[in-house]
Amino acid sequence: MTTQQLVAEIKRKKSFLCIGLDVDLNKIPEHLLEEEDPIFAFNKAIIDETHHLCVAYKPNTAFYEAYGIKGWKALEKTINYINENHPEIFTIADAKRGDIGNTSTMYAKAFFEDLSFDSVTVAPYMGKDSVEPFLAFDNKHTILLALTSNQGAFDFQTQKIDHQEVYKKVLETSKTWQNSSNLMYVVGATKAEYLGDIRQIIPDSFLLVPGVGAQGGNLQDVCKYGMNENIGLLINSSRGIIYAGNGKDFAKASSEKAAALQNQMEEILNLS
Amino acid sequence: MTTQQLVAEIKRKKSFLCIGLDVDLNKIPEHLLEEEDPIFAFNKAIIDETHHLCVAYKPNTAFYEAYGIKGWKALEKTINYINENHPEIFTIADAKRGDIGNTSTMYAKAFFEDLSFDSVTVAPYMGKDSVEPFLAFDNKHTILLALTSNQGAFDFQTQKIDHQEVYKKVLETSKTWQNSSNLMYVVGATKAEYLGDIRQIIPDSFLLVPGVGAQGGNLQDVCKYGMNENIGLLINSSRGIIYAGNGKDFAKASSEKAAALQNQMEEILNLS
Repeated sequence: MTTQQLVAEIKRKKSFLCIGLDVDLNKIPEHLLEEEDPIFAFNKAIIDETHHLCVAYKPNTAFYEAYGIKGWKALEKTINYINENHPEIFTIADAKRGDIGNTSTMYAKAFFEDLSFDSVTVAPYMGKDSVEPFLAFDNKHTILLALTSNQGAFDFQTQKIDHQEVYKKVLETSKTWQNSSNLMYVVGATKAEYLGDIRQIIPDSFLLVPGVGAQGGNLQDVCKYGMNENIGLLINSSRGIIYAGNGKDFAKASSEKAAALQNQMEEILNLS
Repeated sequence: MTTQQLVAEIKRKKSFLCIGLDVDLNKIPEHLLEEEDPIFAFNKAIIDETHHLCVAYKPNTAFYEAYGIKGWKALEKTINYINENHPEIFTIADAKRGDIGNTSTMYAKAFFEDLSFDSVTVAPYMGKDSVEPFLAFDNKHTILLALTSNQGAFDFQTQKIDHQEVYKKVLETSKTWQNSSNLMYVVGATKAEYLGDIRQIIPDSFLLVPGVGAQGGNLQDVCKYGMNENIGLLINSSRGIIYAGNGKDFAKASSEKAAALQNQMEEILNLS
């Protein structure tokens, strides 16, 4: 999917909501555990009830790998279900991968080719040659970790290299990499006040923003500091939406939570 | 496996060799492609011919994920084959994972519980709460990326925070984390001259050292600067060993390459 197509979808749906499909078998409604593939059954129900409210789905691979081959099959069924039924939706493999060159190419193949995701999250620690193999794929997007939503972000990301925070150094440096126009960035909503500075460095790039809701980030603040001419934001909510209900009608409860966020986004888009 | 057991195995086998099982279907002998599971068939042959020469095996997960469910099955069969037939061998899931707390716990379960690896490689960028969930597992080891063997290591890892390189900051900081005695570190052989400084910060920890062979690192230099009282080194070779031959007797060729490295290690151990 191109960035232009993503922007068009945001404008059509009046939403820049991304729903995180982080399925923990200890948290899903009990009646689903009788299904042959409870993870996929859960995701399918959520997708069926929310696809008109969001522009992106983001399965975090950890939640699938934890269940071994069954989990990987559920991930494959989930991405195939989205691509077949809602090809206009942007898909993110939240995998936080990164390795030396030839190995990163294998990861890129795993997510862009084997699983046909539109994008994958990548960690920057190993530098240019660990990220460029992902950037080599046309119309695929590499979402680089910049400033994450967790407390540990202060351990290294906000420390200063030559009077510049590490995450800013990552942003600046990544702009020089080949095919850098295929980059997006992860910036946590819990650090909305940093977004102004970040937009000075990467005014045009899309930001994937986790941390609204369960982690305490505020949607209005994120939009105030982070939005650009093309919207430029994908706001993720995982637990706050997918675990909204716990009965047979759990997906309806998820839909209501998603609709509430979409409503707020529509208001913001109408004002901007 | 405990660190003491690993040290005992190193002394018994007179080897601190780790063999990287990075299986690319484009590089393995053609006759294996007729097998039902070519990746596992390749690994089994390599393991059968090299297990007496090495103390660790390290599959890099990228090479399995690239083949989807088939690849994940081959990874599961490989780790099970090692654990059943050679339980004394230390196993490393080279996965370079790392995410916010509850998600890192899912990754830890994937590799320590579902797949029963002894250790997993983890990226430090997201800080303390992204790594501590891995450290919470008894007799399991978390191998933190410190200074990697690739050119991109100079992009961020060797930059200075408060007059101290990022990788040294990672080493220092990680020592303060809960259960830090379960930490090992990745330090590339291509940067052997850094090992003296690194040993000042973490004198007792095991180092996983990639980059000897195909990437140009030198075994003697690594040992000179990096070895400690408990040896403290696992030297990895992947392509240099597993792709040594390409005929029906490919595993014999791998065994010869592994034996040559083990011989050098035995000499070094006898001198030290």
